[in-house]
Amino acid sequence: MLVNHQQYRTIWTSPVFGQGFSTELRTVEVIDQTKLPHVFEIAKIGNLQQMITAIKTMQVRGAPLIGAAAAYGVALATQQDSGDEYLQLAAKLLVQSRPTAVNLRWSVQRMLSVLLPLPVADRVRAAWAEAALICDEDILLNQAIGAHGLDLIRALYLKKSSTIHILTHCNAGWLATVDFGTALAPIYAAHDAGIDVHVWVGETRPRNQGASLTAWELGQHGVPHTVISDNAGGHLMQQGQVDMVIVGADRVTATGDVCNKIGTYLKALAAFDSSQSGHQVPFYAAVPSPTIDWAIEDGIQHIEIEERDGDELAWMSGRLADGTMATVNILPHGTKVANPAFDVTPARLVTGIITEQGVFAPNQLKTMKR
Amino acid sequence: MLVNHQQYRTIWTSPVFGQGFSTELRTVEVIDQTKLPHVFEIAKIGNLQQMITAIKTMQVRGAPLIGAAAAYGVALATQQDSGDEYLQLAAKLLVQSRPTAVNLRWSVQRMLSVLLPLPVADRVRAAWAEAALICDEDILLNQAIGAHGLDLIRALYLKKSSTIHILTHCNAGWLATVDFGTALAPIYAAHDAGIDVHVWVGETRPRNQGASLTAWELGQHGVPHTVISDNAGGHLMQQGQVDMVIVGADRVTATGDVCNKIGTYLKALAAFDSSQSGHQVPFYAAVPSPTIDWAIEDGIQHIEIEERDGDELAWMSGRLADGTMATVNILPHGTKVANPAFDVTPARLVTGIITEQGVFAPNQLKTMKR
Repeated sequence: MLVNHQQYRTIWTSPVFGQGFSTELRTVEVIDQTKLPHVFEIAKIGNLQQMITAIKTMQVRGAPLIGAAAAYGVALATQQDSGDEYLQLAAKLLVQSRPTAVNLRWSVQRMLSVLLPLPVADRVRAAWAEAALICDEDILLNQAIGAHGLDLIRALYLKKSSTIHILTHCNAGWLATVDFGTALAPIYAAHDAGIDVHVWVGETRPRNQGASLTAWELGQHGVPHTVISDNAGGHLMQQGQVDMVIVGADRVTATGDVCNKIGTYLKALAAFDSSQSGHQVPFYAAVPSPTIDWAIEDGIQHIEIEERDGDELAWMSGRLADGTMATVNILPHGTKVANPAFDVTPARLVTGIITEQGVFAPNQLKTMKR
Repeated sequence: MLVNHQQYRTIWTSPVFGQGFSTELRTVEVIDQTKLPHVFEIAKIGNLQQMITAIKTMQVRGAPLIGAAAAYGVALATQQDSGDEYLQLAAKLLVQSRPTAVNLRWSVQRMLSVLLPLPVADRVRAAWAEAALICDEDILLNQAIGAHGLDLIRALYLKKSSTIHILTHCNAGWLATVDFGTALAPIYAAHDAGIDVHVWVGETRPRNQGASLTAWELGQHGVPHTVISDNAGGHLMQQGQVDMVIVGADRVTATGDVCNKIGTYLKALAAFDSSQSGHQVPFYAAVPSPTIDWAIEDGIQHIEIEERDGDELAWMSGRLADGTMATVNILPHGTKVANPAFDVTPARLVTGIITEQGVFAPNQLKTMKR
């Protein structure tokens, strides 16, 4: 997608120069998402440890992008040591860096299954190729998600004949993927198809990915949007000001439970409850099929919820009135904070899962091609 | 309650010295709640216009305290001009300063009904006396709310025999009243009675009254508490980590619809839904009876929701690492914001209304003594 009128992906590689004959050595570059929306900055990632740090500190975030980043993490590891033992260790460390993201485990496992059968000497080159393939596949998946989601939006638009208001939570836009996004892919597709869409962007405390990332990328693409506090979503749905909800997901269970950024469950409850005030707000999660964890049936019981550092809530970054960046602590001294990063929306509240294969009701998910 | 080991109310008056023989002239002093939790500062309010500004900018906030402040606003107005016309104008301006707060209308109306029948010369003294009476009555109401709410908490504690986890939203503590609070009155009463209570404090975006005010006042009183993002409340209820929800309200309809800080509706939905995951989280609103608007039946249709300035969401105040105060803008340049300040929780999601007369199921509210 475009940044300052220039085409970008969220992650790419470049050759390491001045390394003698080892011309296959590469570094990874990413858009540093911890700096957005205030500063657009590229971070260079030269080894496995730096990639783990980039994932943990959320310089890269969003389930599909984390998967791509982890694949590149394995590729970087092969440059350090291509032996089985080190790659197994690298895989383990990468998987531990964000426990909730199923794409991460999926892509690391895929990298190992490609690399371990190969002679050690062939692994570096193969690793870079496979990681690049994972990225290209992500883009194709997202474009297909966009097309299927566009059908849903178009159907609503044909019925309503005026602005379609879509509420989203967190950032499942192109910044969360390699390109195009998951939850936002249908929105970009609709906007580009000339459908009048407007996006309610939930701020998404504590890390504000909605207010900072989603608002920023929609703005860069020219999609009309309005930021709201996370608290406002229920009121807007109750008042008939939302036509549909589309979120991403870090994991979807085989039964259609949706594990996504903390607060998603509350939006799903409000969408479900909107029928009580005479509205019908469908609730969709948009995910590529690798996000579906076929091993889990009951998400509420069996998905481990990552508890992140309370400082994420306590400290807020932004621009001072003079434009310089600053970070402030908003809490009374010594206040205890709990920071569960995800929640699980039970399938009974989910209208459908938008995937690259089409839109599935939760109880039809198992009919998907795996 | 205590601040730095000294007893305070949120609002009080002091004589104006050096005014010759007019010894009945007074000024109003309040704790400036826009500075908390970082700075404890007293604001002096010398005339009607300053009181309107204090209410609008939320130096004083919380329905009961706004009521008391508006009463003092009328008293300040009498010092400027005690004539009928000016007092009617003052009443109108005060009522317009925060459209949602029913206590404000109630107390302004009460002041007028006391003052207008009096000779103009008697009105200043009578106004100060009546406003002080409103404050004292608020305290008595809150103590009674505390006692009735304590019964509910004690019953849960006798059943569970371990820590009672209470989730609250926004600030309906003593800072929102003249003293003791509404939603927090039962919690203070339980804590003081030796019951092991722990409070989940929702941050309450966009103005963070939970993170700043509720956390601060609970900390001053020594009540164990943990701040969470507003998004986390649903997850905690789903996981059985919440035993009850108690919130305040800016207005309760005759049928038990609860109009409170934006986001309350989402917590009520999660409390109601918790039965689906095997928990039963009762949802209570604690209010003095003047908060009940007997003229309104359907809160969702008929309560005007105040839309506040988007800058409340865009700008966040806090302490820099060196301890100095700063305010940062967290949004991309030029981002549009919507900021509805309240929402309405329908009575069907409300377990009970805790009042000074006892605890009422929504459909029993009309049996109250008016």
